[in-house]
Amino acid sequence: MSDTLDLLADPIDLTAALVDVRSVSGEEAEIADLVERSLQLHAPHLEITRSGNAVLARTNLGRERRVVLAGHLDTVPINQNFPSRREGEILHGCGTVDMKGGDAVMLAIAALSQNASHDLTFIFYDCEEIEAERNGLTRIQKDLVEWLQGDLAIVCEPSNGTVEAGCQGTMRIDLRTTGKRAHTARAWMGKNAIHGMGEALRRLEQYEARIVDIDGCTYREGLQAVKITGGVAGNVVPDECVLSVNHRFAPDRSPEQAEEHLRTVFDGYDVTVTDFAAGALPGLNAPAAQELIRAAGGTPVAKLGWTDVARFAALGMPAVNFGPGDPTLAHTQEENVPVQQITGCFDVLKRFLLA
Amino acid sequence: MSDTLDLLADPIDLTAALVDVRSVSGEEAEIADLVERSLQLHAPHLEITRSGNAVLARTNLGRERRVVLAGHLDTVPINQNFPSRREGEILHGCGTVDMKGGDAVMLAIAALSQNASHDLTFIFYDCEEIEAERNGLTRIQKDLVEWLQGDLAIVCEPSNGTVEAGCQGTMRIDLRTTGKRAHTARAWMGKNAIHGMGEALRRLEQYEARIVDIDGCTYREGLQAVKITGGVAGNVVPDECVLSVNHRFAPDRSPEQAEEHLRTVFDGYDVTVTDFAAGALPGLNAPAAQELIRAAGGTPVAKLGWTDVARFAALGMPAVNFGPGDPTLAHTQEENVPVQQITGCFDVLKRFLLA
Repeated sequence: MSDTLDLLADPIDLTAALVDVRSVSGEEAEIADLVERSLQLHAPHLEITRSGNAVLARTNLGRERRVVLAGHLDTVPINQNFPSRREGEILHGCGTVDMKGGDAVMLAIAALSQNASHDLTFIFYDCEEIEAERNGLTRIQKDLVEWLQGDLAIVCEPSNGTVEAGCQGTMRIDLRTTGKRAHTARAWMGKNAIHGMGEALRRLEQYEARIVDIDGCTYREGLQAVKITGGVAGNVVPDECVLSVNHRFAPDRSPEQAEEHLRTVFDGYDVTVTDFAAGALPGLNAPAAQELIRAAGGTPVAKLGWTDVARFAALGMPAVNFGPGDPTLAHTQEENVPVQQITGCFDVLKRFLLA
Repeated sequence: MSDTLDLLADPIDLTAALVDVRSVSGEEAEIADLVERSLQLHAPHLEITRSGNAVLARTNLGRERRVVLAGHLDTVPINQNFPSRREGEILHGCGTVDMKGGDAVMLAIAALSQNASHDLTFIFYDCEEIEAERNGLTRIQKDLVEWLQGDLAIVCEPSNGTVEAGCQGTMRIDLRTTGKRAHTARAWMGKNAIHGMGEALRRLEQYEARIVDIDGCTYREGLQAVKITGGVAGNVVPDECVLSVNHRFAPDRSPEQAEEHLRTVFDGYDVTVTDFAAGALPGLNAPAAQELIRAAGGTPVAKLGWTDVARFAALGMPAVNFGPGDPTLAHTQEENVPVQQITGCFDVLKRFLLA
């Protein structure tokens, strides 16, 4: 591996070079050093700083608006899909989709940003694929929040090269039924907590998820059991059953409203919220967002999964996902990206930011 | 602890002495040696043999009928309930109910059996509280089956001093639902296997268990979920859910008939039988059984739990449970027996066997 990356090379080659540097969550030092050195060499016009294994760079051109581009450098664990492998117009390998294609486009834009039409901030960060408190953005928000602020955030997560706006919220709850233990040979002396969960599963089966339209984006909600456990022994009427449910909700609802909804759906059950993250409204009416949409062409669509756009939305900025790759291939062994999506995203961002 | 037990002492004191010898399953050598030595000393008229940590003893009086009495020497693990503790008319401690009271009555009868009205066989055996293949009766049935044969078997398990006849069968099945994994943010691309178990739980909730009358004994069946597991991760639509169900069935049904019934109840589900044991018909019309019932007075009742009576029934003998102690206290920390139940059982067996 060379000492620096050639940021002026084709972003497809840059993607392959980034994929070929292992960077499983928690082990991003090597790739962060490489990104930092490469920016210092090829983009000396940028102000550059470090935060742990995150690299932050920005222009200071005095433009009216600032656009923040964010991409995580880490990947899920490698799964017999390292290093990268090019087959015709397809680039295979861990991180090709999630999200070194997006990182490569960001680096290529950074190298060309001497006279950008907006001021630009680039955030290359660590530990996105693991628990939220270790996510580099959490640390940056605490230590260097001014680096995150701007008029539009573009998180370059895979979106098949279309603008995916906002994101849905997520909430996890546990339902708990309690009963009374008894020997199964004398079952009428007990009360079966697993049987008591039947009604909750029936409500899940019958649940009709909302489909919500916001700013022309369609959000499709979901309510899914994700885990169930119960049982004491093969001859004991069980006295506890716990059902974990994941709700994905459109960004017109706050977490409080989502919780209220779930308590109505599961009325009569003991409900505990174990985890939640607010969604993000698409915010597509903001001027910078309109410019991006024009540059991208096509129609923006709703982001259904939760992504770090919600962190930027929480800072009061419109935030979108825009990057190469099919998000349904993320975290799979067969992860791969059609290379023309990398070129396509690069061209859109050039039109939007460098014209 | 003395070198032998005084088998001519009050069976209540004999129960306490047995409780005070630790004999958790697999660790019965000490108590088996003690029982063997005590029988050799106090009942020299008996033919005595060993099989591992089981002690077998019998009369050879040439009587028309032979009655087999069986009691296991092992207990579940001690749970802050050792040694025995007498409070007024109650004897507390691990094994007081399950089943050293029954063992004590058997030893006391053995010591007095020089001129018994029936030939008698006494089986003190090991490892009843653990997996069936380690049960001492399994080994004895293989190596010394003639020691188990007779015209009536009395398993001196706790029955509150009433004759409990036959026993119910037991069968365990696993129901399995399969689905298709998907990200919960795009749940409509998957199929939730946990939701698919709702219908099975509904059938369990609505199931009406049979109540079956045989030889004047009422068997109350049961169908109970005993375990449920499913789930991949907090953001994944799960593709498998497994529900384990325990069915207790009256002895008018064979295991094959019970399985057919379960396949009807859970029609449409993938059903696997994981474990079963046939029940035992009460067989109360046999002459020796009638004699016991007369000696005991009262009305025999159905045994609901599965016990080793089924092993004797499988050898073609009528078999009953008859012993001191409340079976619902077995395996509990507060295990205790009213001492007059020990005396009461001893008196019944004296009338039946020694008159």
